[in-house]
Amino acid sequence: MSKAFEQLQPYLEKAQAFQTAKVLFEWDNETLAPKTAGAATSKVVGTLSAEYFSVITDEKVSRLVEECRKEALNPVEEAIVRELEEEMEKLECIPAGEYREFAQLTSEGTRIWAEARKEKDFERFAPTLKKLVEYTKKFASYRAKEGQKLYDVLLDDYEKGFDMKTLDEFFGTLKEQLVPFLKNLVESGVKIEDGFLTGDYKEEDQEAIGRFLAEYVGFDFDRGVMAVSAHPFTTNLHNKDVRITTSYNDHVDDSLFSVIHESGHAIYEMGIPDELTQTLVGQGASMGMHESQSRFFENIIGRNEAFWIPVYGTLQSRFPSQLGHVTMEQFVKAINKVEPSLIRTQADELTYSLHVLIRYEIEKMLIEEGLDVEELPKVWADKYEEYLGVRPKDVAEGVLQDIHWSQGSFGYFPSYALGSAFGAQFYAYMKKHMDFEGLLKRGEISVIREFLRQHIHQYGKLKTSRQMLKDMTGEDFNPQYYIDYLTEKYTKLYGLTEA
Amino acid sequence: MSKAFEQLQPYLEKAQAFQTAKVLFEWDNETLAPKTAGAATSKVVGTLSAEYFSVITDEKVSRLVEECRKEALNPVEEAIVRELEEEMEKLECIPAGEYREFAQLTSEGTRIWAEARKEKDFERFAPTLKKLVEYTKKFASYRAKEGQKLYDVLLDDYEKGFDMKTLDEFFGTLKEQLVPFLKNLVESGVKIEDGFLTGDYKEEDQEAIGRFLAEYVGFDFDRGVMAVSAHPFTTNLHNKDVRITTSYNDHVDDSLFSVIHESGHAIYEMGIPDELTQTLVGQGASMGMHESQSRFFENIIGRNEAFWIPVYGTLQSRFPSQLGHVTMEQFVKAINKVEPSLIRTQADELTYSLHVLIRYEIEKMLIEEGLDVEELPKVWADKYEEYLGVRPKDVAEGVLQDIHWSQGSFGYFPSYALGSAFGAQFYAYMKKHMDFEGLLKRGEISVIREFLRQHIHQYGKLKTSRQMLKDMTGEDFNPQYYIDYLTEKYTKLYGLTEA
Repeated sequence: MSKAFEQLQPYLEKAQAFQTAKVLFEWDNETLAPKTAGAATSKVVGTLSAEYFSVITDEKVSRLVEECRKEALNPVEEAIVRELEEEMEKLECIPAGEYREFAQLTSEGTRIWAEARKEKDFERFAPTLKKLVEYTKKFASYRAKEGQKLYDVLLDDYEKGFDMKTLDEFFGTLKEQLVPFLKNLVESGVKIEDGFLTGDYKEEDQEAIGRFLAEYVGFDFDRGVMAVSAHPFTTNLHNKDVRITTSYNDHVDDSLFSVIHESGHAIYEMGIPDELTQTLVGQGASMGMHESQSRFFENIIGRNEAFWIPVYGTLQSRFPSQLGHVTMEQFVKAINKVEPSLIRTQADELTYSLHVLIRYEIEKMLIEEGLDVEELPKVWADKYEEYLGVRPKDVAEGVLQDIHWSQGSFGYFPSYALGSAFGAQFYAYMKKHMDFEGLLKRGEISVIREFLRQHIHQYGKLKTSRQMLKDMTGEDFNPQYYIDYLTEKYTKLYGLTEA
Repeated sequence: MSKAFEQLQPYLEKAQAFQTAKVLFEWDNETLAPKTAGAATSKVVGTLSAEYFSVITDEKVSRLVEECRKEALNPVEEAIVRELEEEMEKLECIPAGEYREFAQLTSEGTRIWAEARKEKDFERFAPTLKKLVEYTKKFASYRAKEGQKLYDVLLDDYEKGFDMKTLDEFFGTLKEQLVPFLKNLVESGVKIEDGFLTGDYKEEDQEAIGRFLAEYVGFDFDRGVMAVSAHPFTTNLHNKDVRITTSYNDHVDDSLFSVIHESGHAIYEMGIPDELTQTLVGQGASMGMHESQSRFFENIIGRNEAFWIPVYGTLQSRFPSQLGHVTMEQFVKAINKVEPSLIRTQADELTYSLHVLIRYEIEKMLIEEGLDVEELPKVWADKYEEYLGVRPKDVAEGVLQDIHWSQGSFGYFPSYALGSAFGAQFYAYMKKHMDFEGLLKRGEISVIREFLRQHIHQYGKLKTSRQMLKDMTGEDFNPQYYIDYLTEKYTKLYGLTEA
C-alpha cells in the first residue's frame, strides 16, 4: 500500500463511520422512530454531518491526496482517491456556513413539502422551493467548469457522462416514439381486467408473500432485513447489512412489485465484494445503474410471464378467494396493464419514462431557463395533459407528488428513465447469450443474478455505468433497445397491429 | 453562559452525537440487524468509540474545563463540567492502546461467553474472564486515589457514595434477616398454585396486553417504541426517544412484568427535562436509581393487588381460556410466588436480592481477595446452596448466567439490590403522604408517577441518588425499609406467624 494512501485510512474510516451512522438514523427515522423524536435526533444527525464535512475538507486529507497522486496506486486505491477527490471538490467549494444553512433548509423543506402536499397548497412550499433552487444553482456555480452549464453539473452528480446533450437526445427519442405509441394503444380500446388486484389483501399475507418473493429473486435474509415505511426504499450499512422497506395497501401488486424492485437494489448492494464494501467505491456505481437493477428485477424479471410459471400457484394459494379463479394469463396481463395516470410511483412500465421526461424538462427550465417557481403547477399540468392525456386536479397529485426537490435533489430524476433504458439494453444482450425466459420458467434466477453480479455488482464504483454497459454489451448506451423492448412487449400484450 | 463553557459546547455536542449513534447501533444490533452484519458494523462502532475517546481526552477540552472552574457557572453547567471531568479522569489515565485492546476484549468476550454458556463449558470462557479481571483491576488501579481499594473505584462508577463499607453493612443486614426468613417461609409448606401462568399464551396477545400495560403505567408511545430482543432492555437517544424491548415465551408473567419493569426505566428517561436531555447530566442519576424506578414499577406497583383491581378484567378478557376461571386473588398470589431458584432474572421479589448478594461477595473476592477464576463455578454453587438452598447442575444455570462480566462490568450488580432498597424507602415515605393503594385501585398511577418525576426524574444527574433519597424522605439510605417491606408482604401473603 502506498504510504500516503495508508495515512489516508483513518480519515476514510471516520468519514465512513459518520456516513454509516447517518444511514442508520435515516433508516430508523423512516421505519421506527417515535413521532416526537425528530428535532432532538436531527441535532445529532446534524453534528455527524458536520463531522463528515470536516473530515473530507480537512487540509491534511487534501495534502495526502496530492501525495497519493505521486505514488503508485493499485486500481482500487486509484478509484478510492478519485471518489474522495470528487467529494472534496463538491464540499470544499461550499462555505461551511452555507453548507449548514442548506442542510437546515432541506431538512425543513421536507417537512414543509409534506404539509403542503397534505393541504394541497403549493403556495406553502413555493418560497422554500424558490430558496432550494437558488442554493442549488449557487452551489452548482461554485463547481461549474469553464463554460459548463449548471444543470450539467447537477446531472453529473447522479450519472457521469450523461449531460443535457445526451439526455435531450435520449428523452427526445422517447417523446417522439413513445408518445404516439401510447396514444395509439389507448385509442385501440383494448381493455384489460385488473379489478382482482384490489381487495381485502391482508397485510400479513402480503408480507409473507413479499418475503417469499424477495428470497426467491435472491434477497439474502441473513444479510438483510425487510420492514415497513410510508414509501418503499432500500438502504445499506455495508454489503452484509442491506435493508428494504415496503408498504401495504389494498392493491396487492403495489407491495409485490415494490418488494421485487427494492430487492433488485438490495441484490446489487449485497453483490459488492468484501474488499470494496465500507470504502468510497463500495456501493452501486450510480443512481441510474441502481435503477437499472431494481427496474430490471421489477419489470424485466417480475412482470415477465415466464417468471410467474413456477410461483403463481404459491401466490394463488396464499390468496385463494382473491386469485383462485384468476388464470396466470389474466394475472400477467393485469400486472402489465397500461393506464396513463398522474402518479409516477404508481405508473406502469410503459408510461413511467414519460413521467420522468416531464420532470427532466421542468428541471431544465428551472435551472437553465429561469422558470418562475410560481409557474410550476401550470407547466406541470400542461405537460401531463400533452404527453399522457391526463391533468391533475390538484397539486398533491401534480407538482407536489415527489419528495426529491424538497431534499434539494435536482438532476436525480433522469436516472429513473436511464436505469430502465440500461436494463433494456442488458436484457437485449443477455437474451442472445442465455435462454432468459427458460431460466425464469425453471426458477433459475440465480443464473441471471450471477451474470449481473459478474458484469455489474462486483465492480462497485470502480467503473462508470457507461463503461459497464460498454464492457458487457460491447456497445455504447443506445436508447433504441428500450423503445423496442417497450413497443414489442405492449404491441403483443395489447394485440396491436405493428406500426 | 460562561465563555469557556460556551467554547466547550461543540466538543460536548460531538461527544453526545457519537454516544447517541452508538446507542442506536446497539439497539439495532439487539433488535433487528441481520445475522451476518456483526463484524463490519463493529468496525463502524469502533471508530465512533475512538472518536468519542478522542473528543473527551482532547487537551483543548481539558484546558476549557480548567477555565470553566475559574468562572461562575450555574448549577446545571456546574454539574455538566463535573460529569465531564469524571469522564475525562476515567478515560485519560488509560493509554489509548489499552483502551482499544479492552474494547476489543469485551466485544470478543461477549461472544465467547455466549458460546461457553451455550456449551455449558466454563473453561472456554475462563481465560477471557481472567484477562477481563486483570484489565479491570489495572484500569481501576490507574484511577484509585491514595489508599482507595480497587473494588471501591468500580463501585463508585455505578453508585456514588456506596463503597464496600456501606455495602457490607447493607448486604450483611440482608443476609442476616432474609436468609432465615426465606428458610422459614420455605419450611412453612404453604403452596401457591401458579400453573395457569404457563401455557399457550399467543405472542400477539402478550404483545397487545404488554402495550396496554406499558401505556397504563405511563409509557408514552409518542416518545418511545417497544420491540423484541433476546433479553429485555431499555435504551434512549434522548427524552423524546426512549425504547424498551421484551421477549415472549409460554410464561405470560415473564413478558408482563418485564414490560412493566422496562417501562419504569423508560418513564424515568421520559421524565428528564428538555433542558437536560442531550447533555452529560441528561440521564438517570445512577444504575441503582434506575433500578429503583424499574423495580418500583414492576414490584411495588405491578405486583400489588390494588394495581390489578381496575385492569385484571382486561387481562382476563384477552386470555379467557387461560385466566377466565382464575380469580384476581389467585392471580396476585401466583405472580408473587416465592421459589428459591437458580436464575437471577427469573427470581421472585423476595429471593432476588440474595442472588445479587452472591454476586457482590464473589466480585469482592475476585477483585480484592485474589480468588482464582478457576474456582468460580464451585464458589458460586456453594453460595447458592447456602443462601438459597439450591445448587446449579451446570455453569449455564450457574456462574455463566449473566452477561455483565463478559462486558467488563464489575461493580454493577449491587445496583440491582440497592435499587430495590431505594424503592422500598420511597414507598414507605409515599405511603405516609398519599393513599398509595387507593390511587392504584382507582387507576390513578399518574399521581404516583408525577411524584417520582418531581422528586427524582426531573433532576437527571444533577443530584446523586443518595442526595435525592435524603431530599425526598428526609433520611439517609436505610435498608431496613426494604427488609420490612419484604417480610411484611410475604408474611401476609404466605399467612406466616410473625417472628
